Order: sequence, then C-alpha cells, then structure tokens
Amino acid sequence: MLKGIDPRLNADVLYALRAMGHGDVLAVVDMNFPAAAIASKTAYGELLRMENLTAGDALEAILSLMPLDTFVSDFAARMEASGDASKVAGVQVEAQAAIDAAEGRPRPMGSVGRFDFYDKAASAFAVLQTGERRFYGCFLLRKGVIEPGV
Amino acid sequence: MLKGIDPRLNADVLYALRAMGHGDVLAVVDMNFPAAAIASKTAYGELLRMENLTAGDALEAILSLMPLDTFVSDFAARMEASGDASKVAGVQVEAQAAIDAAEGRPRPMGSVGRFDFYDKAASAFAVLQTGERRFYGCFLLRKGVIEPGV
Repeated sequence: MLKGIDPRLNADVLYALRAMGHGDVLAVVDMNFPAAAIASKTAYGELLRMENLTAGDALEAILSLMPLDTFVSDFAARMEASGDASKVAGVQVEAQAAIDAAEGRPRPMGSVGRFDFYDKAASAFAVLQTGERRFYGCFLLRKGVIEPGV
Repeated sequence: MLKGIDPRLNADVLYALRAMGHGDVLAVVDMNFPAAAIASKTAYGELLRMENLTAGDALEAILSLMPLDTFVSDFAARMEASGDASKVAGVQVEAQAAIDAAEGRPRPMGSVGRFDFYDKAASAFAVLQTGERRFYGCFLLRKGVIEPGV
C-alpha cells in the first residue's frame, strides 16, 4: 500500500489512471457487463478489476485521484435502463453521490442507452469491472486536467 | 496526471510502488549504473525510469507515496565510494535529506559496497533509473507498511 492512496486502488488501476490523459474515458461496469470482451477492444486492452466493491465505493476510490473533465458536458454518464431512459436506479444515485462528493458540488451526470454505452466503452481507454451486482451499475468517466502548481 | 500525486511519478512507477509489499526493495540508480541488465533479473523484470531528475528529486517523489520499512535497520542504503566506504558524496547528502523529510525525522541510511549493491539490486523488486549523473547516486529503499485506518 502507499501513503495517502486509497488501498482499494490496485497497481493496475493506478497505472491506468495515471496513463490516461485529458478526455480519455474510463468505463466502470457491473458484474453482468460483457467486460472482458469489450475491454479487449480498448487502448489498455485488458480488463481492470476492483472486486467485491459496489459501484459507488469504486467511484469514490477512483475519483479520489482522477479529476473529471471540466471542459465538456459529457464528463460522466450512466447506462439507461431498457425502456425507461429517465429512471435513475439506486446504484446510480450512489454513483452520483460519489461524483458530487469528489467534485465538491452537484454535477449531474448524463445518460446513454445500453448499446451506445457498449460502443463508448469499446472506444474508452479502459474498462474496469467492480463487484456491483445491481443492474445498470455502469458508468463512463471522462478524465480532466490538473493545473500547474496544484 | 492525478489529484495529489506527484506528477514526476509515471504510470509504470506508480504500478510498481503499489505492487511492492513489506520488505520489498526498490533500487534507485544513477545514469552510469548497469540498470537495464540488472533490472532484467528483478521481479518486475523491466527498467523503471524517472528521467531528467536528480536522485534527490526522484527520492522526494517516490517517498511521497512509499513508506520506508520501520521494522529493520536496513530500510535504506547508499552505494559506497570505491576505496572510501565512509565518504558521503553530495548526491548522497541530498538523498539523505529527502529520506529525513519524508520520515519527518533524521533516519540515517546504511551503505553497501558496489558489488554487494549489484547483488542486492538484482534481488530487488525493481530497478529505477533517474537522470542523476553524479557518481554514487545509487540507493536501496525497503518498503514499509501502512497501518489500518490510515
């Protein structure tokens, strides 16, 4: 483990978060997601794992290090429920809370349909699978920047 | 880059620091060291790089995350100058200052002879080469632990 680093972030995840640059996307997905298959199409090429954690807990750890994009409106998105795009599942409420806490202000995420999400995940930098078992525990996070002197 | 992480720590270095456990050694070496050859014998197997940095600056960044071992006396060591084991080179004074600053107290490092250093680096977790050009800018750092709740 390391000083001041959330121990839920394993070595592979640390590598990927640091290797990402401005605008790169991390897809954080649940246990039903076709994660290994889609991860194989990404720049990173392998599936990252944060096992036995809810989506909200994983996002809390990830966002303790990763800045979200402040240049665009699609800095984060949830997967829409089939047949009810406006429904926000409980797991998504928890994810939104993790985003708001990390950003220090309410920053509502957007949403994308299931198959659009698959496409966006395939063109992401990497796919990270959590231990989340609730449906629609799938999110896209777009990396922001760190200003000089911070 | 990442929130609160020294940007001098690249993705490979972050991976290795996180992957190391208690007692594992990181060899931080200068530009004349046979770094690639000896790195090939380590557990990590590839040479880590922090280019264009002095040894002191590299140690400052590394030790911002990596705890030093508090269970043993050989938590850190410098390479001894040939023919004058007691001589502490300027580059080694800077490294000691980085260690003391990270530990919050004076913690004098030990020393090992050149060929003993080669052996110890080969059995280290990884070898990391800095941009240090001054002779004897070579150090062994042994990883410590993070207590629960910290």
